[in-house]
Amino acid sequence: MTTDPQPLDANIAQALRGVTTATLTTVLLKKGLRNVWLRGSRPLRSGQGRVVGRAFTLRFVPAREDLATPESWSSPISTRAAIEAMPPGCFVVADAMGTTDAGIFGDILCARMARRGVAALVTDGVVRDGAGVLGTGLPVWCQGVAAPPSVAGLTFVAWQQPVGCGGVAVFPDDLIVADDDGAVLIPAALVDAVVAESVEQERLEGWIMGRVDAGQALPGLYPANAENKAAYEAWKRAQGVAR
Amino acid sequence: MTTDPQPLDANIAQALRGVTTATLTTVLLKKGLRNVWLRGSRPLRSGQGRVVGRAFTLRFVPAREDLATPESWSSPISTRAAIEAMPPGCFVVADAMGTTDAGIFGDILCARMARRGVAALVTDGVVRDGAGVLGTGLPVWCQGVAAPPSVAGLTFVAWQQPVGCGGVAVFPDDLIVADDDGAVLIPAALVDAVVAESVEQERLEGWIMGRVDAGQALPGLYPANAENKAAYEAWKRAQGVAR
Amino acid sequence: MTTDPQPLDANIAQALRGVTTATLTTVLLKKGLRNVWLRGSRPLRSGQGRVVGRAFTLRFVPAREDLATPESWSSPISTRAAIEAMPPGCFVVADAMGTTDAGIFGDILCARMARRGVAALVTDGVVRDGAGVLGTGLPVWCQGVAAPPSVAGLTFVAWQQPVGCGGVAVFPDDLIVADDDGAVLIPAALVDAVVAESVEQERLEGWIMGRVDAGQALPGLYPANAENKAAYEAWKRAQGVAR
Amino acid sequence: MTTDPQPLDANIAQALRGVTTATLTTVLLKKGLRNVWLRGSRPLRSGQGRVVGRAFTLRFVPAREDLATPESWSSPISTRAAIEAMPPGCFVVADAMGTTDAGIFGDILCARMARRGVAALVTDGVVRDGAGVLGTGLPVWCQGVAAPPSVAGLTFVAWQQPVGCGGVAVFPDDLIVADDDGAVLIPAALVDAVVAESVEQERLEGWIMGRVDAGQALPGLYPANAENKAAYEAWKRAQGVAR
Amino acid sequence: MTTDPQPLDANIAQALRGVTTATLTTVLLKKGLRNVWLRGSRPLRSGQGRVVGRAFTLRFVPAREDLATPESWSSPISTRAAIEAMPPGCFVVADAMGTTDAGIFGDILCARMARRGVAALVTDGVVRDGAGVLGTGLPVWCQGVAAPPSVAGLTFVAWQQPVGCGGVAVFPDDLIVADDDGAVLIPAALVDAVVAESVEQERLEGWIMGRVDAGQALPGLYPANAENKAAYEAWKRAQGVAR
Amino acid sequence: MTTDPQPLDANIAQALRGVTTATLTTVLLKKGLRNVWLRGSRPLRSGQGRVVGRAFTLRFVPAREDLATPESWSSPISTRAAIEAMPPGCFVVADAMGTTDAGIFGDILCARMARRGVAALVTDGVVRDGAGVLGTGLPVWCQGVAAPPSVAGLTFVAWQQPVGCGGVAVFPDDLIVADDDGAVLIPAALVDAVVAESVEQERLEGWIMGRVDAGQALPGLYPANAENKAAYEAWKRAQGVAR
Repeated sequence: MTTDPQPLDANIAQALRGVTTATLTTVLLKKGLRNVWLRGSRPLRSGQGRVVGRAFTLRFVPAREDLATPESWSSPISTRAAIEAMPPGCFVVADAMGTTDAGIFGDILCARMARRGVAALVTDGVVRDGAGVLGTGLPVWCQGVAAPPSVAGLTFVAWQQPVGCGGVAVFPDDLIVADDDGAVLIPAALVDAVVAESVEQERLEGWIMGRVDAGQALPGLYPANAENKAAYEAWKRAQGVAR
Repeated sequence: MTTDPQPLDANIAQALRGVTTATLTTVLLKKGLRNVWLRGSRPLRSGQGRVVGRAFTLRFVPAREDLATPESWSSPISTRAAIEAMPPGCFVVADAMGTTDAGIFGDILCARMARRGVAALVTDGVVRDGAGVLGTGLPVWCQGVAAPPSVAGLTFVAWQQPVGCGGVAVFPDDLIVADDDGAVLIPAALVDAVVAESVEQERLEGWIMGRVDAGQALPGLYPANAENKAAYEAWKRAQGVAR
Repeated sequence: MTTDPQPLDANIAQALRGVTTATLTTVLLKKGLRNVWLRGSRPLRSGQGRVVGRAFTLRFVPAREDLATPESWSSPISTRAAIEAMPPGCFVVADAMGTTDAGIFGDILCARMARRGVAALVTDGVVRDGAGVLGTGLPVWCQGVAAPPSVAGLTFVAWQQPVGCGGVAVFPDDLIVADDDGAVLIPAALVDAVVAESVEQERLEGWIMGRVDAGQALPGLYPANAENKAAYEAWKRAQGVAR
Repeated sequence: MTTDPQPLDANIAQALRGVTTATLTTVLLKKGLRNVWLRGSRPLRSGQGRVVGRAFTLRFVPAREDLATPESWSSPISTRAAIEAMPPGCFVVADAMGTTDAGIFGDILCARMARRGVAALVTDGVVRDGAGVLGTGLPVWCQGVAAPPSVAGLTFVAWQQPVGCGGVAVFPDDLIVADDDGAVLIPAALVDAVVAESVEQERLEGWIMGRVDAGQALPGLYPANAENKAAYEAWKRAQGVAR
Repeated sequence: MTTDPQPLDANIAQALRGVTTATLTTVLLKKGLRNVWLRGSRPLRSGQGRVVGRAFTLRFVPAREDLATPESWSSPISTRAAIEAMPPGCFVVADAMGTTDAGIFGDILCARMARRGVAALVTDGVVRDGAGVLGTGLPVWCQGVAAPPSVAGLTFVAWQQPVGCGGVAVFPDDLIVADDDGAVLIPAALVDAVVAESVEQERLEGWIMGRVDAGQALPGLYPANAENKAAYEAWKRAQGVAR
Repeated sequence: MTTDPQPLDANIAQALRGVTTATLTTVLLKKGLRNVWLRGSRPLRSGQGRVVGRAFTLRFVPAREDLATPESWSSPISTRAAIEAMPPGCFVVADAMGTTDAGIFGDILCARMARRGVAALVTDGVVRDGAGVLGTGLPVWCQGVAAPPSVAGLTFVAWQQPVGCGGVAVFPDDLIVADDDGAVLIPAALVDAVVAESVEQERLEGWIMGRVDAGQALPGLYPANAENKAAYEAWKRAQGVAR
């Protein structure tokens, strides 16, 4: 559990903050990846904006009465120790096996993550003490809130291992982008290619939206036939966009 | 797929805009229809008001990698072609088989529907680019939002066929009424009878609510015994309501 | 169905209004109770605050066409009769078997409950006429709203019997505490012990939160090692808290 | 919990042992009852035959660590006490809330039920020690088997109350008929009418099956048009069946 | 609904009867199709063998009390009419939306299908009168049995349209192969390519199985490295298999 | 992934082969462990008997098109490599996240496991090529069969890590006992205590069963009051059982 997370290039982060997760999933689908949206990842507060970061993974298994006790919180393999290993700017991805009746973290742990500069948290589970968590300012994507502590249903076992979260395979250092539509994974090896295409896709969809606002019908426009492709390219040139 | 949707009488639409979906389901139950509420149909934005329209149905089946591709978007049997067939004022009902991890429509398609005068959209699935969809002004009832495109999980196959949506059978031209409680179906053949009873039911429940506010207990009042029925009739006469 | 609900000591109610449900579940877990959070109990309106009351239970079974009719609403075993048996200050707990497509109560019944001084309602089902229910001012925790009446899916059979609600066993007179994290049960026999420990737990967590805000790491702090325990005890003495 | 179960007329029992549950649900549907099949009620052993009996109901709520203990087995409100209240020939209906990870009964309790002359057991839960239960000879309809004891997930609270079982409302004294297709409820008040029609329906379907075997197509035959109705009536007369 | 089903080449049928559905899904995955296994398609009777046929599709939507009545069984759009349109040798695929509490067909309809030479039936729903259906000899893959008639939960609306069945998109004329592992779809356009590769894949796996039985470890064998590939090719030559 | 599995004492294995999983869960519950039965663990073939072994864990995460390919089968972190690390007599526990539409293993991998002396396999997923797997003789507990290969839904990531299987936390070296009721976990640290109590519990239940067969009622017998406890102790002495 000593894999050092890779830093994220600032230009990539900047570019991705301008791309919706809807566009990212479209680009990833064109590359053959259909299963990249973390099911159940809803923003805890609407208007959290878009957050980009490399995945730092946490893993839970089901609770066992002889293991998942308040005493376990001081074990060397604890969420506390994991938090101290998180680098600034990382996007914490917690595999809670979709559990919705035990909150993985409350205000204290989220406050410490925020303090360490963690960018955001996404889980297929829930958090607890929702008001307290919102108070820490840490952006969270999750299935909601539940009062019970994690040990009521979960046992923490590891960090920085491959995990499943919301039905998606997440490896340490994969990229996570989250906005009001939820959280999307970009495999580490595909980041550069995805960024380039996503920016172009956003530009194209913006142009199409303008045509729809102007009253144009969709057949032939979306996707574009030859005539509309030419119109788009002309518009791009007029905007001074390098091809 | 050429069935022309039937127009909706303006008086019926006007009357139904004054009846809650809760009241409609009560009236329909009295006629023996228990299964008329489209499960999972929540307003995308609270305060969308109440919308009434004839159903224009869309049908999806599961995705298949050899069929559900971005290229399919220009097929003659595409959501784009279906949208161009929608008449003004219709209520689009999309059978997405309850799929919650692929958004059936995003901002561009919703913008075109809004532009064509579609009254609203209801689906047992989800939409994508939630912020963009809200920006189009099209009222939507759905299970929420998800980033992935429809082709990540769905293949569009037909419009204006009978469909299931949220566990309810919907035929073209059935009436849909939706408000903050969700979307309710009125079978085309029952519209006139339902409208008449619903207006009376709303009036009665309003009177009961006034009695409850005045401190009256429910037994004998709701439902009403002979004494309370008489009181209600007297009140109606005083209000000048024709029987 | 004549068990008189026990009144709730005012000091206990006052103390519990200052304790989060997250803290209560932690304290109950330490006593061996892992299953006390009513799954699916979300506040109908955020900002309802925290409500405390003794459970008054209601029980539904599935609908049967020969039983669950509008006519049944005037049966002696009806929700109307149950409401008239509710004491002021009780917390109504309705076992709807998790049904989400038939609303157990609408505006009229909730108005009458509010009028009778019922503290709040929690159900693992849903309510109907959401806008009307909110208008009554009765605080509600539930899974959401649905238009259809209860008889579309449910038959009311009894009150003040043991029930299951959201996967939790609830007996008449157990205590319910609900806030934005949902509703939690405290078994009647454990109330005094839980109150005492919960107040201390809240104090401790408040102190820890202060240390986290000051930049302290979690290992050794939460849970506390000897050094931090001593620091906390010193802080308590400085605050004038009797041990 | 002292309602004495009503005995079952021997002629009715005899007649119903010759009618499939498939036919019974058809007859009940014609009377407006669509929800009478206990979901998840599969025979524990195929070839158990058809069993008919009056419902004797049992009710469980979720487990609570302070209640659902091995010690609770000697409480006056225990499954043991309930078993001693069961009359010979009854059909035990246990509402286990669909729980599939805790077996409501094992070999010892089933052996005692068999010894007392209980006709059969149906539950929407599971049994435990499947081999032992089969050894007792008690016919069981359930969702399967699970090793854990009932107290791992359930608390027994009452007998002879109205219950839900497999999504169906069951009242004491309703009739239960079970065969390889599962268990079906006949409301007590409808038993006589259902028996009469069911016998005729079985006869009719037997005649139709003979025609299908002879190569006749279904349109006009099933359901029958005038010509085929006449042919059936002629066949009945030839068989000497009184109308 | 007049699309004539395409006949199935006898050589293809013969070849596919020698290929397991496990092998077919492996071959289809290599072509990029991951979603071809009809979830919930279990053989009604083990030992039904392997059946191959072109899909003849049926489509149901949810029941509606004003539509799904016994009277509807004589409508021109009925399952009876659909059955008369089925060609010999077809594999009927019924989209029942996964409904498990209403049987789509019983003994009479299955007997007529068998009589017409239908090869088999697969549905994501259930059948009724299980004993009767088994008696007709029609091979069935389904989720199990339930007593209630289809109209208790379903309304039949069309045949030979694209459907979803068990989460898989099925178009008329797609090929279905079913054995003890369930039912698999081969898109019509891919049949020739899949058959060729499947036969080779079966041969290869048979050879590997022989090596495992002889004690060889899997790494390097499955999948094969250069050495084992050479050994396999030598074996094939020795068997006289043309490449 | 180099933890060497601990051998299992032959006396313990022998003793546990005489104890039902139903009894084991009763004994574990008395020690406070309620969640030890692996949900969904059904014997692939009835009559597999009872198998005891130390857990050797496997872990899958969801499939990702860029990872879960046939090519991945020759990766160093592959199921093939894991199988070569399995010690004779181990009980393989595969965490498939409950996936039922992709079989984790088919005939070839099961044959190799059997050849290596693996005692049995349990998974919360399914296997594929069910007939082939049965042919290998490896006892399997699972949710059933499905044709598609694991890579259609799963990516293998590790062995001998803590896992969740059927909602139960399993650590390497924990003990697994499986019979017709399914598979149960005994935490490694509790094995000795559980064995001793289980043998006594089996003896006691056998004695009770004899009394029930002799016609004794359950109250006072199960659990036993003082009189019956004395009768049991006398019987034990008569049998020559050391206390």
